[in-house]
Amino acid sequence: MEVFFRPRGIAVIGAAREPGKVGYMVLYNLKNSFRGPLYPVNPHAREILGLRAYPSVLDVPDPVDLAVVAVPARVVPRVVEEAGRRGVKGVIVLSAGFREVGGEGVRLEEELVEIVRRYGMRMVGPNCIGVYSPSTGVNATFFDPSRQGFPGPGPVAFLSQSGALGAAVLDWAEMRGVGVSRFVSLGNKADVDEADLLAYLVGDEETRSIAMYIEGVEDGARFRRALEEATVVKPVVALKAGRSAAGARAAASHTGSLAGSYRVYMAVFRQTGVVPADTPGEMYGFALGLALQPPMAGDRVAIITVGGGSGVMASDWLSSVGLRVPELSPGTQARLRRVLLPFASPRNPVDVTGSARDEHLVEALRIVAESGEVDAVMLIPYFNLAGISNELPAKVARVVAELRRQGVMIPIVAPVVGGRRAWEIARRLEREAGVPVYGSEAEAARALWALRVYGRWLQRRGALEDYLERYRRWVLGGGVGA
Amino acid sequence: MEVFFRPRGIAVIGAAREPGKVGYMVLYNLKNSFRGPLYPVNPHAREILGLRAYPSVLDVPDPVDLAVVAVPARVVPRVVEEAGRRGVKGVIVLSAGFREVGGEGVRLEEELVEIVRRYGMRMVGPNCIGVYSPSTGVNATFFDPSRQGFPGPGPVAFLSQSGALGAAVLDWAEMRGVGVSRFVSLGNKADVDEADLLAYLVGDEETRSIAMYIEGVEDGARFRRALEEATVVKPVVALKAGRSAAGARAAASHTGSLAGSYRVYMAVFRQTGVVPADTPGEMYGFALGLALQPPMAGDRVAIITVGGGSGVMASDWLSSVGLRVPELSPGTQARLRRVLLPFASPRNPVDVTGSARDEHLVEALRIVAESGEVDAVMLIPYFNLAGISNELPAKVARVVAELRRQGVMIPIVAPVVGGRRAWEIARRLEREAGVPVYGSEAEAARALWALRVYGRWLQRRGALEDYLERYRRWVLGGGVGA
Repeated sequence: MEVFFRPRGIAVIGAAREPGKVGYMVLYNLKNSFRGPLYPVNPHAREILGLRAYPSVLDVPDPVDLAVVAVPARVVPRVVEEAGRRGVKGVIVLSAGFREVGGEGVRLEEELVEIVRRYGMRMVGPNCIGVYSPSTGVNATFFDPSRQGFPGPGPVAFLSQSGALGAAVLDWAEMRGVGVSRFVSLGNKADVDEADLLAYLVGDEETRSIAMYIEGVEDGARFRRALEEATVVKPVVALKAGRSAAGARAAASHTGSLAGSYRVYMAVFRQTGVVPADTPGEMYGFALGLALQPPMAGDRVAIITVGGGSGVMASDWLSSVGLRVPELSPGTQARLRRVLLPFASPRNPVDVTGSARDEHLVEALRIVAESGEVDAVMLIPYFNLAGISNELPAKVARVVAELRRQGVMIPIVAPVVGGRRAWEIARRLEREAGVPVYGSEAEAARALWALRVYGRWLQRRGALEDYLERYRRWVLGGGVGA
Repeated sequence: MEVFFRPRGIAVIGAAREPGKVGYMVLYNLKNSFRGPLYPVNPHAREILGLRAYPSVLDVPDPVDLAVVAVPARVVPRVVEEAGRRGVKGVIVLSAGFREVGGEGVRLEEELVEIVRRYGMRMVGPNCIGVYSPSTGVNATFFDPSRQGFPGPGPVAFLSQSGALGAAVLDWAEMRGVGVSRFVSLGNKADVDEADLLAYLVGDEETRSIAMYIEGVEDGARFRRALEEATVVKPVVALKAGRSAAGARAAASHTGSLAGSYRVYMAVFRQTGVVPADTPGEMYGFALGLALQPPMAGDRVAIITVGGGSGVMASDWLSSVGLRVPELSPGTQARLRRVLLPFASPRNPVDVTGSARDEHLVEALRIVAESGEVDAVMLIPYFNLAGISNELPAKVARVVAELRRQGVMIPIVAPVVGGRRAWEIARRLEREAGVPVYGSEAEAARALWALRVYGRWLQRRGALEDYLERYRRWVLGGGVGA
């Protein structure tokens, strides 16, 4: 698998000179990202985008271990065979016209798989939008960067059975300011599938959590084993589409997947510790929370808010996902009262009020987190208030770092209540303090639910202590939030 | 009520010279918004922000029919009495320190209400963040516009029992690019409450739908009557916080509201045709959809998508809210096949594929909407694809206008799948074609659910035909989307 993310040299078979064509765009994106040798392959060109072109992959000099294929389907078997003969180890087949179109396409795909196996290669696709791994300079996708956002490096790996949806999620992630470690568009999964990539990503240091969009998998037993092996080490979040009869019918016509019973998938997820998500945004948000924060070891949450209404809604949403908002002990309430404003409420929600300053929020965070009375904190600043400054992220980061050094390993999440400026500052909360931010109290509550689902799973497997120890080493060793 | 939104002159009692103070900020905001006479009242100043100051509201020249009050609670009764003597008709009391603090505050509030009644005035507040009505130039709030977004004029009125949350929602609306007709922070509701404002807003031409954030109401019977009278004319969306035990406890400590049983509120909403929302974003999104589109007269939805995965998820979400995604008739499928690409699917979801151009989407929209086989359309463009251009909003607007002229009155909504550029173009879809946009297939499905809830209510009341006739007149008379 490594060859897809850290190739030594890349050939683009079917590199085109016409802007807009798939074979042009993928070369364009690779030229702007890849730091190793890059070889356009096109029998009718001598040079494309300033790079020397070769008539066949057989003519390409060393090193080349990855080929990206963008030629018509009927030509694909021949060029992939040449790649095999040339010693290429991995191929990414972008071309469509295989199993998804039926008939001749099915036969072509079988022929392609036979070739790939014969040469001991691995193949992503066909009928996919490619691979994106920003930290290693691989943008082997054909989306136009003037129309498509590509997020920077980050802790979440993302596998998508739907190409267009995968690209749209990357576009969203770029806007949202959250990065990706590896993205793979799985396409028809004729060779490489979720199980292969899970096995790789478990050992991938840059990947701290794994998100997947799935319509259907072929080999359920293999998928299940891969999940079991992954989730004791790293969190896995899955969005399974085709839940309803209408959705399953749509999936069958989209990827040809037998979507299978949604309930069966949900049972497998429950039994293997996979956190199920309901929307792409939730999938990414869960994965980000699991990447940045420790899981929840119990179900008690403290809410610290500058707005009473947010405290009410957060309480509602936490209750609706089975988490508790317990009253704090008299001792903790007394400690809070000493630092908060006279009209603040030291119960839970801790309402520091709209007159609060940064210090009230961060002191409340410190006192509540140190109390040992809760398993998570939801921190709700409103950045439109006069007392809440641009410096809040840095101040929160200092408190979080202290808490981690003291061994306080409870997750902290923050809903963003507000508009443009609120989001700008909140994103810094994420980058500087490692506190993941969510678009509403509801989303933040759901994210804590995900952290609890995963925490409970680790407890069941007796793996929570080990996981927290690894988290501690990561965060104190320079991870985000310490 | 009119005086709060269209005052002839405004006095700011407690206008301050010190930037950052409430009495400064509200004058600052009014100076930058209000086009009529504005009078700072402050016995220690001769001029504030370049405006002549008066020692008392009694000294203020004509015309003055609205007073905004920002003095300490104990002084409020005296200055409000002076306003009454001066002939002021409405007061907005921003000051806190009344019923919400108990004890002496309760007595002060009673005294205040007695004065307001004695002079036949109406009062918003106390303990509120004010009133905002952009089209009439009233920004009587004290939020700093360098930290707080103020949306432009729009079709949604928004009443909030929580001030800070109300401001945060306005901030969000500004970022999101959706406007507001009237915003009122209700505060302690010592005089003006939801029922008063509902009665006013029903007759307010600029308001096409009403959104409310509620923790608890005092006079349930009055509230219910106001809702009954409003919803046959205009859609009302309500977010009732305090659903859970933890949330109800938080509400009691926040606004002192007896949150009442959530189920009782839900029953009242059901019986009066109010659409319940679960989050502030959803509340605003429902209200916007109801303002721009006709309600759903049945439960059949067509999905038109460029991405298969989105079609699957949209099907799932529509099913989960009780809407149907029926197969289209052979005749309609044949008409679609004639205009779509060879690999497109003319069933439902209509999958125009990632290779589609604008024309495929808009022709599919026309054919499906004209078929009479569905009661709504969910249109899913991906703006990162090469074939989908910046011109799509204008093209959709033309088709929608034609449909409306033909009398096709089914709602059209669009999820935005993607990032920054997708949102920019999608917002134009909203502004130019009146097609409301949502952040995911899930949100768009929920919005259609809201349109169906309201449509069913109008059908039950025998009021759908009249409503659609008013909608037709509005949209053909220059409303957004025709």
